[in-house]
Amino acid sequence: MIGIDWGTTSFRAYRLAAQGRVLDSLEREAGILTVPPGGFPDALRAAIAPWLAEGDTRVLLCGMVGSRQGWQEAPYLPCPAGPAEIAAAVIPLAFEGAECRLVPGLAARDAGGVPDVMRGEETKLVGLLAELGDAPALACLPGTHSKWARLGAGRVQGFATQMTGETRAVLLQHSILGRLAEPGPASDEAFRRGVRRARDPGGLLHHLFGTRALGLMGDLPAAETASYLSGLLIGHEMLAVLAEGLPDGPIHLAGSETLARAYALAFEEHGLPHRRHADDIAARGLALIAESIPWSLP
Amino acid sequence: MIGIDWGTTSFRAYRLAAQGRVLDSLEREAGILTVPPGGFPDALRAAIAPWLAEGDTRVLLCGMVGSRQGWQEAPYLPCPAGPAEIAAAVIPLAFEGAECRLVPGLAARDAGGVPDVMRGEETKLVGLLAELGDAPALACLPGTHSKWARLGAGRVQGFATQMTGETRAVLLQHSILGRLAEPGPASDEAFRRGVRRARDPGGLLHHLFGTRALGLMGDLPAAETASYLSGLLIGHEMLAVLAEGLPDGPIHLAGSETLARAYALAFEEHGLPHRRHADDIAARGLALIAESIPWSLP
Repeated sequence: MIGIDWGTTSFRAYRLAAQGRVLDSLEREAGILTVPPGGFPDALRAAIAPWLAEGDTRVLLCGMVGSRQGWQEAPYLPCPAGPAEIAAAVIPLAFEGAECRLVPGLAARDAGGVPDVMRGEETKLVGLLAELGDAPALACLPGTHSKWARLGAGRVQGFATQMTGETRAVLLQHSILGRLAEPGPASDEAFRRGVRRARDPGGLLHHLFGTRALGLMGDLPAAETASYLSGLLIGHEMLAVLAEGLPDGPIHLAGSETLARAYALAFEEHGLPHRRHADDIAARGLALIAESIPWSLP
Repeated sequence: MIGIDWGTTSFRAYRLAAQGRVLDSLEREAGILTVPPGGFPDALRAAIAPWLAEGDTRVLLCGMVGSRQGWQEAPYLPCPAGPAEIAAAVIPLAFEGAECRLVPGLAARDAGGVPDVMRGEETKLVGLLAELGDAPALACLPGTHSKWARLGAGRVQGFATQMTGETRAVLLQHSILGRLAEPGPASDEAFRRGVRRARDPGGLLHHLFGTRALGLMGDLPAAETASYLSGLLIGHEMLAVLAEGLPDGPIHLAGSETLARAYALAFEEHGLPHRRHADDIAARGLALIAESIPWSLP
């Protein structure tokens, strides 16, 4: 079968054998924002034509392709939800020449009763659950909007999104902190310093201004501003998540090389055990969900 | 004498009698960013020419005009500092036809040893100190970068800046929260809801994403996004400041009508007593500092 993780800014396709073994894969910067209205079937066909020509007939998609801005909106499935509920809730997509299904996103409510949503990460979590089994666990999927999921009894019990990556980007591009920053290589020491700073009193909004004051006073090199800011924001994110409790065992971390490395550094700085997982657990999740779907075509 | 509060984006001038009585004033959107290099004397002369023509010879300036981007850089004075130290640290500015002096900004270090700075607000605090005397007090001066100052023994003991206003602006203009927001009248109820939300666990970066999720789920009208976001950020700012302790008596609040009203609503929501002061305490501060300066001209 063919598995597709189609996000806002990227397109990843996997040709999959049993148990999620990846036979072939491709990645393009062709997120849903690049697709014109009504253009999703053609865009998909163009990307996976060679595989379709070889006779693949099952295509399972996940990610923002199932949002209001995507191919078709798939209603969110409420947590707790596991692989069985997710597989039972896939919706069909009209596509000529193959059977196409769309994985729904998940919804949760936090302690304050405020809703939260994910699209695409639920599929990675299905891949992770297959490795982790039934024990309670905390998973961290860093990204523009980082997802922290509480797993247990083989299901996603709940999750919370942290708008860390996007906040970092808009501050660096548009605020006084960006005018201060100069380009430079990523600095692990400045990053760690930012992570430690998050523990001080004063709050994030004060620490942001402190980043400028440090620069102004010559206490933070301009080329280290971006790394320090990353550490500061990720530090605040971690402290907020950890305040709600930590299950036994390591934090399970899966994301791009750059982000997973940064979060791993932050965990180290806090003395928190963690375990990194390959970012392509999405492929495994797609294969597992596909195995539970009653496909019509052989 | 003439007092000038010259900030990044605004220019305010006061013609002052004894004890800070305002005889005349003017306000222009002619902040230091609008002044070409070397153009400060001419810009000042153009603004206050009528007063100079009537024989005023003493001009005292405060604000970002004393920064590296301003007329001349005035070194920061470290806290604690009171009216006497500030008056003793004014620096002369070359200006034909009148005697010009520049008020220095203040610097402080927070509990984490990180520096903080202000320019212009020290003059407002001098005005406030004249009203408050020697008792310990907490002052809140909201703005793009809000200043919270701890006063006592007739001096500014220390202060902390919160980057609330600028963070709100960049998130509304450049993040996913802005794409969600629609213009609408300010909503006190949405603002209060944001203030209350800040008390929930999860942290600011989670609450930011929650603002989007509320909108997505139809739980927050698009026209109320901006008001809710203001309340959320000001709520987080307040909780961080209050965590460091609150002296007896009301919080002393001075700022523009819109901001002071918003902060007053947030204080009410937390059941915190507060007292509003006129925003032109800067004029009073300028007059008080001027009275302590040994001017050369009569």
